[in-house]
Formats: sequence, C-alpha cells, structure tokens
Amino acid sequence: MKNIAVILSGCGYKDGSEITEVVSTLINITQLKAQYQCFAPDMTIESTDHLTGESSGPRNLLSESARIARGKVRPLQELDPEQFDALVFPGGFGAALHLSDWANKGVKSKVLPEIVTVIKNFHTNSKPIGAICIAPVLLAKVLGDKEVTLTIGNDTETIQEIEKTGSIHEDCDVNDYITDRLNKIVTTPAYMFDEALPSEVFTGISNMLNELVEMA
Amino acid sequence: MKNIAVILSGCGYKDGSEITEVVSTLINITQLKAQYQCFAPDMTIESTDHLTGESSGPRNLLSESARIARGKVRPLQELDPEQFDALVFPGGFGAALHLSDWANKGVKSKVLPEIVTVIKNFHTNSKPIGAICIAPVLLAKVLGDKEVTLTIGNDTETIQEIEKTGSIHEDCDVNDYITDRLNKIVTTPAYMFDEALPSEVFTGISNMLNELVEMA
Repeated sequence: MKNIAVILSGCGYKDGSEITEVVSTLINITQLKAQYQCFAPDMTIESTDHLTGESSGPRNLLSESARIARGKVRPLQELDPEQFDALVFPGGFGAALHLSDWANKGVKSKVLPEIVTVIKNFHTNSKPIGAICIAPVLLAKVLGDKEVTLTIGNDTETIQEIEKTGSIHEDCDVNDYITDRLNKIVTTPAYMFDEALPSEVFTGISNMLNELVEMA
Repeated sequence: MKNIAVILSGCGYKDGSEITEVVSTLINITQLKAQYQCFAPDMTIESTDHLTGESSGPRNLLSESARIARGKVRPLQELDPEQFDALVFPGGFGAALHLSDWANKGVKSKVLPEIVTVIKNFHTNSKPIGAICIAPVLLAKVLGDKEVTLTIGNDTETIQEIEKTGSIHEDCDVNDYITDRLNKIVTTPAYMFDEALPSEVFTGISNMLNELVEMA
C-alpha cells in the first residue's frame, strides 16, 4: 500500500491549511487505496479570526492541524522520508506564512529548513510531490534550479514571482492539474480561485492525486 | 437550484463540527448542483486541544465555523427556513455539547431553542432533514414523538438513549444511510465509527445527500 506524507500548517485558510483542500486530499488518498500520515510544524503562530479578519491570539500549528486529522498528526521533524512513497502539500496561507514567508517576501522568501530538507529528499529519490493552491511556491523556491513546471492557477503577480525562481508556470483551471513528469511534480490551483466551489476543488485534487499515486 | 442550510457548531470533532463530515457535505451538495449556506450559533465555548485533549481556552463557534466555511457563515438566528429546501446537521461533539447537552444528559438533554424551532419548521413544512454521526440525536429529541427512524451506527449505549425518546434506531454501516420516507429524514453514521477512513465517511454522506436532494 502506497504511503503518503501530507504536510499541514494549521487549520483554516487565513492562518493555516485550507480545510477543504486537506480533506479532499485525505478522501482521495484513501479512495485510491493508499494510506497517509499527516505532519505539521510544532510552532506557535499569531492566529486570525476567520469571520472578522482580526488577530485571535497565539495558536500551535500542530494542535490546530490535529483538528483536521482527528488527533493523528505528528511533528514535522519526525518525518522519515524512507517510510513514504510520495509527499503532498495542501494550500492555505499557512504554506506562505509558516512553512515559508512567501506571502511577505515572494521570491526573496525563506522556506522552513525542515521543509527544504524533506522536499530535496523526495525529489532526489525520484518520489512524486504534489502541491495545491499556493503551496507550489515551496517547490518553486526549493527546486527552482531544476526548472520545475507547476501551476498556481492564473494570478499574474504570483506567477511573476514564481518565474523569478527559475520555475516554469503553466496556467490551469480549478478542476485540472499540471504534471512535470521529469521532476515528478503535480500541482493544482484549488482555492487560488477564491470563488471556486468545493466540488471543483475536490475534482482538481482528485485528478492530481490519481496521477501522484500512479507515479509513486 | 435547491438551497440547503448547513448547521455548524465549531471546527474540530472534540469541541465542534467534525471537519471531514462538513467538507464532505459541502462537496456533495455542490456536486449535486445544489447550493448551501452555513449557519452556526454565535456562542463562546471552552475549547479542547485536539492533540492533548486538554482545555485550550474560550473560542467562539461562529468564528471557528468560519474556518471551514471560508468566512461564509451566518449567525443561527438569521436562518429563515422559507429560503431553504432542506436542512443538514454534520456531526462532531459540537452537536452534543453546544447544539444540545446530549453528551452529558442523553435523553434528559435540552436542545438549543433556535435548533428546536428550525427542526420543527422544516419537519412541519415537509422539507427533508439530514443528520450525520451523533447529530441525529437532535432529531430524536425534537421529533421523538413522531416515531422518526434514524441511525447513529451501532453504539449500544447511544441507541438505548435514543430509543427512550420514542425514535426508532436502525443499525447502519459507515458507507450507508437510513431513510425515514414519512418524516423525510436521512441519517448516516460517519465518524460514529471512530476508525472509519475519510473515503468511507465521504461515501456514506454522498449517498445520504443524493437522497436528501432528491427529496427536496
């Protein structure tokens, strides 16, 4: 049974993982008869009220990620790549605020060292990596010198920053995905289209994960 | 286009709505070409850390529900039944801790007055109601005198309490659902089976919502 590591960054798209993207990922992995383990950084961040947009105090990303994963989430530093066949990054601002500081610095951002290590390990060992929504920027930053091809939909400003990393961007609809066969990278835009329907996000992720699991 | 009211009670199964159940509900409603509006009580509760099980301070159910609904959730008291064709209650302990106090009092519990009003209104107007996981206890409490037939899976203790309301319980597998055609009530056990896979929960909810939308 294929074993897939899924990297979370909290619970809620404004300060963590986009919830529909994570759940769509876990539903599809298990529909494809693969299994998963969720991981998240054990890190305290300043959270955002998703109703008002105001600050709502400090929260721990591991504890918040446990809300989606029903308690079954492990600290990021316990991720042993040898135990997994593929890696998936759901989106949400958590990926651009906590797994990296892309949201504030774009191409000049830094990616969390544990995330850099994990991405390089999977890529070097020719294991597929999937990334959803804004999370492909992590792959652009870490693997830009490999000329990876990926998508974050069609947002012009983000695309310009991504292309400065050396990565190649392809526009993509919400229900579709982009494959880089050489680098074994699959990406889908999901809620980069803010008004997307849950069913459209699900379809895009479903199609992407079909390809990922087949590659694994 | 059928319009469905979805009642949330926070974000996370230990102190709110079960996240996979909510997302499965929203994906399937939109797959079925229906639309939805989420509602939640504007109520502050004591939250639970989903990693440690310990208290993690006060949180507001409306703000937390907004994490799943991407900000698009309205206060429960704004729910106008005339605008909707059907009603759905996802599960999670929120339904048995905040929408009612079933978790502590079983058959002697009280259901939140706004929830009682809404359930009675939809039932009286012959509009279908769906409930997932532990949420069918709300229907048992409010409509027990109508001899409603429903399921919460196969948990003996909960079934005994449900039957004291006058409701009829039928055992059900995670990927299946129970229909009460007379009362237009559909129910599915979802994470009442704690070790269920996300894909199984999704299938049960998908089957249940097919029936609900057809009835609406």
